[in-house]
Amino acid sequence: MTIVVSGPSGKEHCIGVGAIGIIAGPCSVECREQIISIAREVKKAGAHFLRGGVFKPRTSPYSFQGLGREGLELLIEAKKETGLPIVTEVTDIKQLEIFDQVDVIQVGARNMQNFALLKELGRCKKPVLLKRGYAYTLAELLMAAEYIIAGGNDRIILCERGIRTFDKHARNTLDLSAVPALKRQSPLPVIVDPSHATGLAWMVPAMAKAAIAAGADGVMVEVHNDPENALCDGEQSISPAAFASLMDVLGKYAEIEGKTV
Amino acid sequence: MTIVVSGPSGKEHCIGVGAIGIIAGPCSVECREQIISIAREVKKAGAHFLRGGVFKPRTSPYSFQGLGREGLELLIEAKKETGLPIVTEVTDIKQLEIFDQVDVIQVGARNMQNFALLKELGRCKKPVLLKRGYAYTLAELLMAAEYIIAGGNDRIILCERGIRTFDKHARNTLDLSAVPALKRQSPLPVIVDPSHATGLAWMVPAMAKAAIAAGADGVMVEVHNDPENALCDGEQSISPAAFASLMDVLGKYAEIEGKTV
Amino acid sequence: MTIVVSGPSGKEHCIGVGAIGIIAGPCSVECREQIISIAREVKKAGAHFLRGGVFKPRTSPYSFQGLGREGLELLIEAKKETGLPIVTEVTDIKQLEIFDQVDVIQVGARNMQNFALLKELGRCKKPVLLKRGYAYTLAELLMAAEYIIAGGNDRIILCERGIRTFDKHARNTLDLSAVPALKRQSPLPVIVDPSHATGLAWMVPAMAKAAIAAGADGVMVEVHNDPENALCDGEQSISPAAFASLMDVLGKYAEIEGKTV
Amino acid sequence: MTIVVSGPSGKEHCIGVGAIGIIAGPCSVECREQIISIAREVKKAGAHFLRGGVFKPRTSPYSFQGLGREGLELLIEAKKETGLPIVTEVTDIKQLEIFDQVDVIQVGARNMQNFALLKELGRCKKPVLLKRGYAYTLAELLMAAEYIIAGGNDRIILCERGIRTFDKHARNTLDLSAVPALKRQSPLPVIVDPSHATGLAWMVPAMAKAAIAAGADGVMVEVHNDPENALCDGEQSISPAAFASLMDVLGKYAEIEGKTV
Repeated sequence: MTIVVSGPSGKEHCIGVGAIGIIAGPCSVECREQIISIAREVKKAGAHFLRGGVFKPRTSPYSFQGLGREGLELLIEAKKETGLPIVTEVTDIKQLEIFDQVDVIQVGARNMQNFALLKELGRCKKPVLLKRGYAYTLAELLMAAEYIIAGGNDRIILCERGIRTFDKHARNTLDLSAVPALKRQSPLPVIVDPSHATGLAWMVPAMAKAAIAAGADGVMVEVHNDPENALCDGEQSISPAAFASLMDVLGKYAEIEGKTV
Repeated sequence: MTIVVSGPSGKEHCIGVGAIGIIAGPCSVECREQIISIAREVKKAGAHFLRGGVFKPRTSPYSFQGLGREGLELLIEAKKETGLPIVTEVTDIKQLEIFDQVDVIQVGARNMQNFALLKELGRCKKPVLLKRGYAYTLAELLMAAEYIIAGGNDRIILCERGIRTFDKHARNTLDLSAVPALKRQSPLPVIVDPSHATGLAWMVPAMAKAAIAAGADGVMVEVHNDPENALCDGEQSISPAAFASLMDVLGKYAEIEGKTV
Repeated sequence: MTIVVSGPSGKEHCIGVGAIGIIAGPCSVECREQIISIAREVKKAGAHFLRGGVFKPRTSPYSFQGLGREGLELLIEAKKETGLPIVTEVTDIKQLEIFDQVDVIQVGARNMQNFALLKELGRCKKPVLLKRGYAYTLAELLMAAEYIIAGGNDRIILCERGIRTFDKHARNTLDLSAVPALKRQSPLPVIVDPSHATGLAWMVPAMAKAAIAAGADGVMVEVHNDPENALCDGEQSISPAAFASLMDVLGKYAEIEGKTV
Repeated sequence: MTIVVSGPSGKEHCIGVGAIGIIAGPCSVECREQIISIAREVKKAGAHFLRGGVFKPRTSPYSFQGLGREGLELLIEAKKETGLPIVTEVTDIKQLEIFDQVDVIQVGARNMQNFALLKELGRCKKPVLLKRGYAYTLAELLMAAEYIIAGGNDRIILCERGIRTFDKHARNTLDLSAVPALKRQSPLPVIVDPSHATGLAWMVPAMAKAAIAAGADGVMVEVHNDPENALCDGEQSISPAAFASLMDVLGKYAEIEGKTV
């Protein structure tokens, strides 16, 4: 199954059978200059989708919570500027009212079993990027997808982003065997987020390559033009230059697998 | 800190310093006869609060989802009948509109980081029973409570209900050391749910006793009058007779700790 | 099943049905004064066995590895002085040659599946205290015991000492539900080590009490006369005074359960 | 660092910088026909080392424990027949006396912290393949290696083989991020065992490819000529034909990384 999204210029952007989809962008939209600049860079390097958080789920109520509606407008501006469809996270059902121009709606790990939200997304006509929660099994992830499907929306991209284990050498433990396991059980595309999985920028390229080798239909990578001063998750963001190099090598890996990036 | 709830007759029901609070009842409200009967039994045995799920978060969209509004009315009827304040879970912000007669609002493990819901509960005047999620740290649990507190509501009861680990001899791994650890860091009352933690009725009494010995301010126990035919989680529900025996021994444990049940 | 050990004066020391057995002492034997002093204190407070490591399994080859044979002699001296049977860990089959006066041989978590060692202990006539490994299931623990039993030695005490999970608020996650689960499947006595399980002295009493409440046949507690200067694991050792207080309250808990300490 | 092993004909077999090393063979040596046949097949497909267990660490004392000394002789015969250096597991220090013709000594996951064994291997002149234990951190794995190095033997190959987590869709959770993490901290070669990591033959190729993409210096793969009738771990063994196909694609992956297989 392939998820096809039409960009603002009508061009089709795909994630699925034979088509590796690359989603890139900053953890959070911070200001016009930042998001436009990063959007241009990832576009130039070959990304198919632009990501950027505007409603941020944060462990502490006192942490930066995202730019909200203002951030969304900036993200939409970046979409128009570059032609890249946009992916952003929903954290509250009410936000869906202003998601008209969002192309792919992300459900974060914390909300994987927020069934009220999943049911609402089942009534929605947009593709949903559903992230696996910290300690949920694959059966539970597929059942979460089923909540959306049961509502009438089967355009779902599953995303492995690391699970919680005893081991803390990386932020989470990336469970790459989830990729072949999910693909054996479901026709839905499966992508990997090596940035949240590892929390370490230097580890992202190795894990992105491994994801494609394991059979993933795409990766979502955090890219920032100034990682050290990022408002959120800078330590896991790679630079535009590192992203461009990564795209080159991912293309070669995809070719071995008979796919295109 | 002690959470005090006035029952329908004005009697005060407490969970907190020196006062072990016992919450008991079925996983789900199933019908009038069931909930009234169980409510009477747990009241007779000495429970302080009646629990019963009416909006059930279920892994599969095809599982029994609870009786909803009708179930809530039955639960309220049981409250009037027995004088026990009621505890029930919220799974969608919209449900709060009909929770006027609910005494304690439960946030389940799946929603521990549903920040939109937590913020709404911060604006609410009712005590919140906040369950620890499957793989959340104590720091994250306390930060989830902080979302509610930041909104103006500090009447929160923390609940340890088992975490996910490699070990599957029980449904979850009950992390009893969370009890002294939480109490060292926070004034909030801490209770334990041995029913969800173990998923095994025969193990519930041992773990309920251990919870009190570890310093918990209460326990929440699933009690069913016909566990084998329960619509949900029957295998972890104890009978009213077993619950009555458990109450006796918990009283003795509390006494050693200088507390009352 | 009850494990009975005759002390040097012929007095019987038990762990098992109806008889809570308390094992106490320092992590490591450090010098004559230390071990004799602690032995006297724990004897006075009511302990039934003296523990003390002389061959220490340490993660780093550069950490203190125990006093070895010299430490063993000091431990034996403490046994003669107090009449307490001694428990110490074996880390190499060759050490068994000099374990004649050791009363209970401990197999540490790291060696739970060191089958060559288990087979050798099957040919031995002494009780074995078998600790559960960091990430082994109860079925695997019972199979490790079976290696010893198959060799002809069924005097085995099982010991839960915490497992490794995502959660790091304590050194390990004490899995107290292992106690009723093991006792349901096996006649072997089951004890708990709250010191290694938590790694935090202030948490040890709460978890020791919870262990007895959960049905454990005993606890093994690290006691040190100068925890801050202990050569190993000082932060998890309680003082002799704290141990004496704990013994008092454990006696009350045991009484409720119809057992003696 | 590269581990170089001279085969019986004097040819050098390598695992390390720039040289992907492939170890293949059955879980257990079962009979002459089986091991010779598999050895020839994996040699033909391009494997550099032949693996085969003769002393098997088994959870239950009643499971097949390996052919022992007889199996070792068959393995040595296969070595002579094919010219492939052999890798086999040690489970008891005493076995080292008969390991003269073994080329690489494997320490299994269960013995990663069997310090008596590690110290003995430090005095040995042969390369050691050190597998990460079920729940050990990378720091602990490196410290286990340090026990061998401190004894004078630094020819160590580290092996990631999956860790224990809550998730059971595969036998273990393969922690591929361990590969870049170990390589950043240590000069030792790092390989991956996708067979034990997943326990599922159909998943082995995807994970072997992902291992190379993640930067591993090699993989160890279980290959059996009759997986359904294997005496041990047949469900995770791939056929010789599947292994030959895998070798082809691993060669392409290695080439992208500037390495040879």
